[in-house]
Amino acid sequence: MNENPVDLMNGFACPLPMTEYKNVLLAHGGGGKLSHQLIQKIFISQFKNDLLDPLHDGAMFTLGGTRCAFSTDSYVINPIFFPGGDIGSLAVNGTVNDLAMCGSRPLYISAAFIIEEGLPMEDLWRIVLSMKQAAEAAGVQLVTGDTKVVDRGKGDKLFINTSGIGIIPDGVQINPKQAKPGDKIILSGSIAEHGIAIMSVREGLEFETQIESDCAPLNGLVETMLAASKNIHVLRDPTRGGVASVLNEIAESAQVGITIREEHIPVNEEVRGACEILGFDPLYVANEGKLLAFVSPESANNVLKAMHAHPLGINAVLIGEVVANHPGTVIMKTRIGGSRVVDMLSGEQLPRIC
Amino acid sequence: MNENPVDLMNGFACPLPMTEYKNVLLAHGGGGKLSHQLIQKIFISQFKNDLLDPLHDGAMFTLGGTRCAFSTDSYVINPIFFPGGDIGSLAVNGTVNDLAMCGSRPLYISAAFIIEEGLPMEDLWRIVLSMKQAAEAAGVQLVTGDTKVVDRGKGDKLFINTSGIGIIPDGVQINPKQAKPGDKIILSGSIAEHGIAIMSVREGLEFETQIESDCAPLNGLVETMLAASKNIHVLRDPTRGGVASVLNEIAESAQVGITIREEHIPVNEEVRGACEILGFDPLYVANEGKLLAFVSPESANNVLKAMHAHPLGINAVLIGEVVANHPGTVIMKTRIGGSRVVDMLSGEQLPRIC
Repeated sequence: MNENPVDLMNGFACPLPMTEYKNVLLAHGGGGKLSHQLIQKIFISQFKNDLLDPLHDGAMFTLGGTRCAFSTDSYVINPIFFPGGDIGSLAVNGTVNDLAMCGSRPLYISAAFIIEEGLPMEDLWRIVLSMKQAAEAAGVQLVTGDTKVVDRGKGDKLFINTSGIGIIPDGVQINPKQAKPGDKIILSGSIAEHGIAIMSVREGLEFETQIESDCAPLNGLVETMLAASKNIHVLRDPTRGGVASVLNEIAESAQVGITIREEHIPVNEEVRGACEILGFDPLYVANEGKLLAFVSPESANNVLKAMHAHPLGINAVLIGEVVANHPGTVIMKTRIGGSRVVDMLSGEQLPRIC
Repeated sequence: MNENPVDLMNGFACPLPMTEYKNVLLAHGGGGKLSHQLIQKIFISQFKNDLLDPLHDGAMFTLGGTRCAFSTDSYVINPIFFPGGDIGSLAVNGTVNDLAMCGSRPLYISAAFIIEEGLPMEDLWRIVLSMKQAAEAAGVQLVTGDTKVVDRGKGDKLFINTSGIGIIPDGVQINPKQAKPGDKIILSGSIAEHGIAIMSVREGLEFETQIESDCAPLNGLVETMLAASKNIHVLRDPTRGGVASVLNEIAESAQVGITIREEHIPVNEEVRGACEILGFDPLYVANEGKLLAFVSPESANNVLKAMHAHPLGINAVLIGEVVANHPGTVIMKTRIGGSRVVDMLSGEQLPRIC
């Protein structure tokens, strides 16, 4: 992806800090190394403050004595309807999940629509119905919104931003920096379904049973987990960039090492097959209804048991642990007995996956 | 604008409620009648709840005993740089102002970027710097964000969503429904500057002095006003659709009549000239640094005096009052002594003005 040579920097008038690219590339939105660089060098360098944590799914602060989480995401997924969901349910669940990953109980969300002129009114209607259902299922209220229309060819059917507010219960302290050596790492279920569902549609792949996105609200599962134990240090939903990118971000943020075991990571057979056909490593493929939890070792079994009793955690498994060695690095023990570094991806794997 | 005949409804599968258009038009985002219809029939019909007030700039609710305001807006302005501002300062000030129009003190905002592939990194950098300055000037913290990149030709340089949270002080009760017969209507300064600045750039018009957008944060002015009196019933910033649309929305919402006097509404000479050249009525043109306040008659002079002491309220004037007659209708006494109904505009006047 390194098409823009570094010497372009000479013509680059950003005073500092700069990136090595003169123009924004698709890969700057892919959730990998370039996204990380863009966010750090352009956004975080300027907006730095105590509450802005680039590696967390939302901001956390206190309003009149109440601890709150606040999160935002724009959805630009293509296509807007896909097996297992649509841009509307994705937008509601995505922000619900970001709030849940802060340990908060999501309460209120906003919805802002950027519609391309010419969008069939019926498509908008179906998406609004889908958002309504998703909000009801997640137990959140959509309380404010905005609508903009852009000329034909200046957008792509529909983009939706959702932002949301949740309340963090007493005793809950969840943050990527809290990952500690000894923590057990739990994955709530099989991976790569969202990304592969989208790519299968785009590529026209057909399977015996259609692969569906795992798009779902995780706040109920998180509530179940927190009822079992408050010793949950980190929660993250592995969306863009998949499990591999999220684990790398946590390892870097907490300056700890992470080891995972390949054989413990569940991937459905058809998803694995599609990954092979499409040339994707499922570890890097987006999920929209799965979470990773870092739990202190004495509480891990309790949390796992609680998860197994929730419909979205039936297949939860221990996939690894946090170690004091190799800080900042994720190492996977492979099925064939070796071990390899699981790096953050540098380019764009799946554009417009959320 | 009525290009889609009503009989298209026959082929229209939205169960109900439906609009009379089969596809979304640019005018559905213009802030006039069609926007109103889209929002009511498609969004409000489904998302209806106690907190969702389509005629207010944000939602208001209580979090752990603290009254909060929550607002969202996406910015799709074209061009992204314009005299008096850019999409970044507009996005920060716009959400700050929506929160201020709920009577709240804006505290935290989010920023979500949808970038078109190929945007010069330097443009993004300039906009980020501008957002930083705007946030500092308004006294708000940018605490969370998101970045998406869409393929070339599927966006238009840059769209930004900002959402925000503010705290509503005790004793403040501001809501469009609170407009009462007898209330005085105050306008904080001269109108139509934002819209005309944008249109002048688009049309290549040149004037002796360049017309600049009035883009500014109004939270300081609102604080000054509320310190002078808590008897402020309604606050609104007349953005898309201008003063005329906002007054119509308030008249409808509170089921009161509104009368305004044309000669009292300040319009700068060059803006008036540009409106004539471009064929716009300044009453319908967007502002980004002005507000309308509905104040009980005994407090109006105090509020006006306080406004005159604030840099953004120096030219504040009384432009009219709320009456019990003609509920839902805005009537303007014209300069030449007649009077006319100021209706809500049906089509699109200025696309992508914010």
